[in-house]
Amino acid sequence: MLQLYIGNKNYSSWSMRPWVLMKQAGIAFEEVMVHFDTFDAGSNFKKTIEAINPVGRVPVLVDGGIVVYDTLAICEYLAESHPDKALWPRDKALRAQARSVCAEMHSGFGALRTHCGMNIEADLREQGRIILRDQPQVRADLARIVQMWSGLLQAHGGPMLFGEFGIADAYFAPVCMRIANYGLPVPEEVSAYVARIRALPGVRAWIDEALEEKRFVVMDEPYRASR
Amino acid sequence: MLQLYIGNKNYSSWSMRPWVLMKQAGIAFEEVMVHFDTFDAGSNFKKTIEAINPVGRVPVLVDGGIVVYDTLAICEYLAESHPDKALWPRDKALRAQARSVCAEMHSGFGALRTHCGMNIEADLREQGRIILRDQPQVRADLARIVQMWSGLLQAHGGPMLFGEFGIADAYFAPVCMRIANYGLPVPEEVSAYVARIRALPGVRAWIDEALEEKRFVVMDEPYRASR
Repeated sequence: MLQLYIGNKNYSSWSMRPWVLMKQAGIAFEEVMVHFDTFDAGSNFKKTIEAINPVGRVPVLVDGGIVVYDTLAICEYLAESHPDKALWPRDKALRAQARSVCAEMHSGFGALRTHCGMNIEADLREQGRIILRDQPQVRADLARIVQMWSGLLQAHGGPMLFGEFGIADAYFAPVCMRIANYGLPVPEEVSAYVARIRALPGVRAWIDEALEEKRFVVMDEPYRASR
Repeated sequence: MLQLYIGNKNYSSWSMRPWVLMKQAGIAFEEVMVHFDTFDAGSNFKKTIEAINPVGRVPVLVDGGIVVYDTLAICEYLAESHPDKALWPRDKALRAQARSVCAEMHSGFGALRTHCGMNIEADLREQGRIILRDQPQVRADLARIVQMWSGLLQAHGGPMLFGEFGIADAYFAPVCMRIANYGLPVPEEVSAYVARIRALPGVRAWIDEALEEKRFVVMDEPYRASR
């Protein structure tokens, strides 16, 4: 069976993407949780994950002897292995567009990712207000998200970014978490999409398990000394 | 015909990847050069590129009504459109591995990219020596490149990373440029790969045209006030 190595559900936005994708699309897999302690060379996290992935990061998908170690490569691998699931849109033009926005997410939105780290169990609305006030690049990232999602939802009619659920939605699910946890202001059509994403069974399952974790990782909590 | 929008050949490492891929694989396209002036909102570069790509970046591939605006998405689009070219390895496990290293490049190596911007016509060996001395993250990025390439060349027997030329080699071609221009020290098997990449006709054509440009872009020249 496929094995997916992931980090803490509360914090690991990259892990969330393929996990939610497989859960929501009904692809069976075994989860292997490697809890974050630190990312130092001698940490338990690094030692455990480096045994299967030289880059020392999660997520990693293991399929027998095949090790796929980067989120976007994992999504491509799954799309190719499960053509019946239409994880990318079946239409060539839409597929190119979906790959473009995922590649944009993969390499971009650095300010949003740095300043608004995913933290599903936390109420960070006050921090979100301050971050938005002080960080023009976070405002720019959010504006691009709003432009992208509004455009896609209008062009393809929803309910997901390209009609039915797929890789693009899984890719932006952690951004939906951030918008909710940090209370980032978005137009009605965007907040409705965020609500729809949060209500998907595959996303709901991740959120519920994140809330169950109750592990406080200091390096992921820049705003709080304790829970 | 396919159109590829790119930035200056001397500086635009992201433009180089799909250009070299198509040139070397023999995929016909029309090049549309959008010279860098600045990346400010009102710049000629931004105004020109935003007319076709809302993200305002190069490269962009236009295929009739289809606009693909991110390097990795462009490569996937070309691989899908030209199955005869085997732009990804034909073997499933190798393909997963090739996608993993490209995705790693797409989102990673930030220190190498920031400190050693591509600058094909320049001799930056002295700067390279200082950067390596002062920037531990650049040393770490270079060590990972050496580990990755050595491992792949040994595993698959060369001459390219996965045997024959493909997307992964195009993806790392700008890193080969940096190793040469900044004189970054690498083991013999890696420098031999760099030399083989630089000698590919598709790469050679890019280098020759970069050397012909003679346009000095201040924002891309952190080390020099003039050419």
